[in-house]
Amino acid sequence: MFICDNIDRDSSGGLTFAGCSVKSLAARFGTPLYLMDEDKIRQNCRSILGAVKKYFGDAGGVLYAGKAASFTRMIAIAAEEGLGLDVVSSGEIYTALKAGADMGNAFFHGNCKTDRDIACAMDSGVGYFVVDCEDELYALEEEAKRRDTVQKILLRITPGIDPHTFKAVATGVVDSKFGCAIQTGAALDMTEKALSCPHLSLEGFHCHVGSQIFLREVFTDTAAIMIGFMISVREKTGYAARILDLGGGFGVRYVQDDPDIDIPSFIEATAQKIITLCDDGNYPLPRVMLEPGRSIVADAGMSVYTVGAVKDIEGYRRYAAVDGGMTDNPRYALYGSAYTVLAEKEIPGEQMTRCDLVGRCCESGDIIQKDVPLPSSLKRWDLVAVCTTGAYNYSMASNYNRLGRPPVVMLTGGESYEAVRRETDEDLTALDL
Amino acid sequence: MFICDNIDRDSSGGLTFAGCSVKSLAARFGTPLYLMDEDKIRQNCRSILGAVKKYFGDAGGVLYAGKAASFTRMIAIAAEEGLGLDVVSSGEIYTALKAGADMGNAFFHGNCKTDRDIACAMDSGVGYFVVDCEDELYALEEEAKRRDTVQKILLRITPGIDPHTFKAVATGVVDSKFGCAIQTGAALDMTEKALSCPHLSLEGFHCHVGSQIFLREVFTDTAAIMIGFMISVREKTGYAARILDLGGGFGVRYVQDDPDIDIPSFIEATAQKIITLCDDGNYPLPRVMLEPGRSIVADAGMSVYTVGAVKDIEGYRRYAAVDGGMTDNPRYALYGSAYTVLAEKEIPGEQMTRCDLVGRCCESGDIIQKDVPLPSSLKRWDLVAVCTTGAYNYSMASNYNRLGRPPVVMLTGGESYEAVRRETDEDLTALDL
Repeated sequence: MFICDNIDRDSSGGLTFAGCSVKSLAARFGTPLYLMDEDKIRQNCRSILGAVKKYFGDAGGVLYAGKAASFTRMIAIAAEEGLGLDVVSSGEIYTALKAGADMGNAFFHGNCKTDRDIACAMDSGVGYFVVDCEDELYALEEEAKRRDTVQKILLRITPGIDPHTFKAVATGVVDSKFGCAIQTGAALDMTEKALSCPHLSLEGFHCHVGSQIFLREVFTDTAAIMIGFMISVREKTGYAARILDLGGGFGVRYVQDDPDIDIPSFIEATAQKIITLCDDGNYPLPRVMLEPGRSIVADAGMSVYTVGAVKDIEGYRRYAAVDGGMTDNPRYALYGSAYTVLAEKEIPGEQMTRCDLVGRCCESGDIIQKDVPLPSSLKRWDLVAVCTTGAYNYSMASNYNRLGRPPVVMLTGGESYEAVRRETDEDLTALDL
Repeated sequence: MFICDNIDRDSSGGLTFAGCSVKSLAARFGTPLYLMDEDKIRQNCRSILGAVKKYFGDAGGVLYAGKAASFTRMIAIAAEEGLGLDVVSSGEIYTALKAGADMGNAFFHGNCKTDRDIACAMDSGVGYFVVDCEDELYALEEEAKRRDTVQKILLRITPGIDPHTFKAVATGVVDSKFGCAIQTGAALDMTEKALSCPHLSLEGFHCHVGSQIFLREVFTDTAAIMIGFMISVREKTGYAARILDLGGGFGVRYVQDDPDIDIPSFIEATAQKIITLCDDGNYPLPRVMLEPGRSIVADAGMSVYTVGAVKDIEGYRRYAAVDGGMTDNPRYALYGSAYTVLAEKEIPGEQMTRCDLVGRCCESGDIIQKDVPLPSSLKRWDLVAVCTTGAYNYSMASNYNRLGRPPVVMLTGGESYEAVRRETDEDLTALDL
């Protein structure tokens, strides 16, 4: 079984993705190549938005966390599917405007919003700022006052949950660069300060406890902590939140050992918890928002490379080097992330040899994945595919070694089209004066 | 004392870099901002090239390893200083051509050269290919044959030295994606194969044992192993190498605890070893090449940021967030690299508070440096500088969170000019279709 149902092999052993021949796509668009399954993206959007609407009613909403994969066509697809947007920079706002997204349904996140960010976001009509800290709160109040307007905001709250996930992506613990902790009293303090700002309208609270979460209890516990906080705020200040934004973090399956979580059932459990607690606490049910990013795009992506060299180091290991690497997929270099790797051509029963799949950058750490089984006959010019690369690959890509970024080719209904073109050598020097 | 002699403070406590006011530069060019001290770059080039010429004579040469910082003006400066080039991609070749560099003095490196790379490099007249493996050797022979030419090559040899450096940048050990190991017999085997290729002219051998090397013995031992290999090759095949390229790897001082190495004395010791061994072995003294990158540009760089938020988490720590981060400097996220951080303004005797300097990306791992002392009064809109960011910062930068890359501003003789302009939101969507 393949890691995702959009991957298959044709009768001659050739890899297909979203019903298209990977070999044909590589021949047409070149390698390295990002493929994105538009139908899978839409399916993921519908699955999550459908569950939110089912369990929370029309007041529930889903924001696409653009940082997972931000380019114009992607934002347009999310908007077409009825998702709002989680944006984090003027670049993401510019992209959203270009995509024709409704900025009133955009939430501006981040732990360090500059004056330029604030002005740009207000100019563009961003619906909500998710305020991280006091410095930002007062900068926003000042700018809203200057514009003689009232800006809607949420506060980013740190519920203090350890999502039992990889430390580098665990953002919900108290000792975090993000948000205001309930535990230290900072969250209540910030709430009181926000309520005292005449040009800010506090709409509610946001939290995000981490990434790659596979435990349902993390979401239900987080929701319980947040509702408890909201009830306690109402007791102390009289303020009842209208929005509860629970962030993202749904785990995505990269390798066979990862669990395959049923996101709608997570949403159902979270909804039951919230509805029960609000009911018990006589708290008006808030509008509940979720912010999936990875779970919208990760399994909609595949990266395709051409092998440039296969090297056996006697007594050590085999290396297979490809024409991309940490430039287009820095997640192994950054986090040691696991991925499933497939040869484009695999004959049933063929002998396999384990090897380290490495990139072309002049750096030892440029590894895509260690110790993966690939056909023993693998050679220069063969194609290999890395699965589940739709999230945090294109968006984190660099031009290290002065390598251009691959194009993003969208696949839908068996057809393909370029959503982002390949970066050329000319593009790479475009900023040089 | 500051970490490098191009850093100072004026009489009012304001930071200066290369004799220029950091505050004025930030006001003129905005933040985040890369500053590069052109005079220091030239001084580093002259120091290394001077030592190579002094100890090896005119046959010695220095190649600038462009991957440390590759943009047109930088390549032009290296070329003006008489350095050749170490290039690794068609993008670096394109940049070198734009800079007017002499491609005959360029060495094309990399563990996975594509057919397009090979064609592009031959088209541009690259002097030498540094061949990594058998697949590449035969691809080169084929292309040179097709063009009815003879291409000069070196072979990348793995001498099997552990440079006692950080594993992710240790490239000289036998179990490496790079090169052919002496120990396994692969190096001799590749030499014989290269000598049998009629369209390739084997000019010599290359090695690179790692980065951030502070031990002189690593260089002298490497040289000894390489000369030993060359003598052994001559015994077995009759072939005497004309070039010995020892790569780069000179350690750079990032923090006060790092040693401050005297590169010319390392070169002298290496030269003495090579000359003695060649003399003893009756081996014709080869043309010796070095490939510094980091040691040319690292201490010529400084990054300047504006603080967006200062947050004290009671019982835990202080966070200071700035308007850049892992996008413009991914080295802490990738390697946990140490840096020296300075406030732009520091009053003598001022109280300091230790804090984590974090970036603006929506990611917990977006840290520039942990636990650095900064003025207790640090607040939004203050400037901070990160020292020694000339290498592997701009060249590794990404657009994660859809953030544009900072400009590179060159400083020389107290004057400043933009060498790379700031990436705009429009630039960020330029490839979107």
